[in-house]
Amino acid sequence: MPPEPFFAGPGIDRADALRARPDEVAALLGNERATAVMWSDGAPALGIDGRLQWQSVAGDEPLFLGLDNGVPRFSTLPDGTVPTDSRAHFGMLGQLAPDDAPLFAAALSLANWHRRHGFCSVCGSPTDPNRGGWSRECRSCSAEHYPRVDPVVIMLAEHNGRMLLGRQPQYPPGRYSALAGFVEPGETIEAAVARELFEEAGIRVTNVRYLASQPWPFPSSLMIGAIADSTGAALVIDRTELDDARWFTRDEVKAALTGDGGASFLPPPRFAIARTLLEHWVAGSAS
Amino acid sequence: MPPEPFFAGPGIDRADALRARPDEVAALLGNERATAVMWSDGAPALGIDGRLQWQSVAGDEPLFLGLDNGVPRFSTLPDGTVPTDSRAHFGMLGQLAPDDAPLFAAALSLANWHRRHGFCSVCGSPTDPNRGGWSRECRSCSAEHYPRVDPVVIMLAEHNGRMLLGRQPQYPPGRYSALAGFVEPGETIEAAVARELFEEAGIRVTNVRYLASQPWPFPSSLMIGAIADSTGAALVIDRTELDDARWFTRDEVKAALTGDGGASFLPPPRFAIARTLLEHWVAGSAS
Ligand SMILES: [Zn+2]
Ligand SMILES: [Zn+2]
Repeated sequence: MPPEPFFAGPGIDRADALRARPDEVAALLGNERATAVMWSDGAPALGIDGRLQWQSVAGDEPLFLGLDNGVPRFSTLPDGTVPTDSRAHFGMLGQLAPDDAPLFAAALSLANWHRRHGFCSVCGSPTDPNRGGWSRECRSCSAEHYPRVDPVVIMLAEHNGRMLLGRQPQYPPGRYSALAGFVEPGETIEAAVARELFEEAGIRVTNVRYLASQPWPFPSSLMIGAIADSTGAALVIDRTELDDARWFTRDEVKAALTGDGGASFLPPPRFAIARTLLEHWVAGSAS
Repeated sequence: MPPEPFFAGPGIDRADALRARPDEVAALLGNERATAVMWSDGAPALGIDGRLQWQSVAGDEPLFLGLDNGVPRFSTLPDGTVPTDSRAHFGMLGQLAPDDAPLFAAALSLANWHRRHGFCSVCGSPTDPNRGGWSRECRSCSAEHYPRVDPVVIMLAEHNGRMLLGRQPQYPPGRYSALAGFVEPGETIEAAVARELFEEAGIRVTNVRYLASQPWPFPSSLMIGAIADSTGAALVIDRTELDDARWFTRDEVKAALTGDGGASFLPPPRFAIARTLLEHWVAGSAS
């Protein structure tokens, strides 16, 4: 059984066919069991059990998240700003219950997107929510705009039994993690993996294999995890992106994942897919 | 050797580190070898050999595509509209040389994105191209906007040695292909595959496996190809999305792929990743 990403839980029935039927969404909104996400400091609020907190639906423009065992679940836009930087939420992500992670991600990404899309990119006019909050329509030119999901490749590179990991400047002391970058228009996943590894670490890779994926709601990425073979060990590190990059042995990675006090580095946290990728590698399910 | 998607060619060196340096981009623009994509009817023009056609760089706002064996390659915005419907380009896609497919996709997706992002979605003010055409910056609030890449899952579902394929209303007569849908905020690739197959065909699946990916520039999708096992054969077809969906035997798929005159359906064209997925399946490299 390969390790599962943290945000790969079952989520709820999105019931997205209902979004196109305003009468159905209104009926669900009026349902006495309907509840909406509670917000706190720009993110969905968590209880002491790490579960999302729900309240009665109030406010304008509720977004229909789906049906949770028949209970209609909504979200609203939080007051104030929605932080797009994951660091503001690292503490709370450590508390988040895995079963609620997909809903947490959906509510946070949608809120971020609505906050930044009050105007039409085609003509500059105001937009209004549509389809139960899953699109916005322009008041002037009627263009319909859909929430963004930005695909990001995040990858391990192996050479002679060692694994390449890097340090971004904003990481806590000692942390190393997988390199990553956005997939661009015109690229395959495999091409993006090869390009990013060459740009950031100067290595050429072959045999790119997909491992796992998860959403990352800061603000709305789809993390696509992969592993590749490096043709060499020599690194040319892009110092504008990385503080450092190094090769680690399997024993070093194992020690880091088990929280060994003598480990040579601090691994990514359990809610980061980079950790899932490292777990695949030490479990031997990444070849 | 598993089959490769049509748009998975090597492309060119995107040299994206240069985009952040306007002086470097200007120098490349002034390079006597610099050339720009020729456009025809809203798409990059092709020669009789299926290769992109290049001309000297002219016009405003050239987009820096990268370095092609040292030759600086640019794109400009075509006159008139850029069709976002792939059907307008099916004839030309049949002629496109695979080596130029990634550049064709990048130029077309970027042109579409610029055409629809002249205004800031945050505040409604005009935006200007930035970073060699790989972003646009708001004149008023300075928000920076990046080209969209929309991840789409496209998948085969297998049951008892048969493969599920469906017909969209706009397909030519007899064509069946893989089902597909957009990945939503808060979803994994695997969750999106399972949701779409249930919504469109009423089947529940397990064991979702990634197979291959390719860009699809209508307007800017990343097609993520997968295969899954269906727990049953009974279908509930969503008639708002599909004309029909059916199970096909491996022999039927083989006959369709080889162009057998007696084949029971018309397969997707070679430039569609759905065809690559079917080739994986008949080659036995999809298990
Ligand atoms: Zn508009
Ligand atoms: Zn603005």
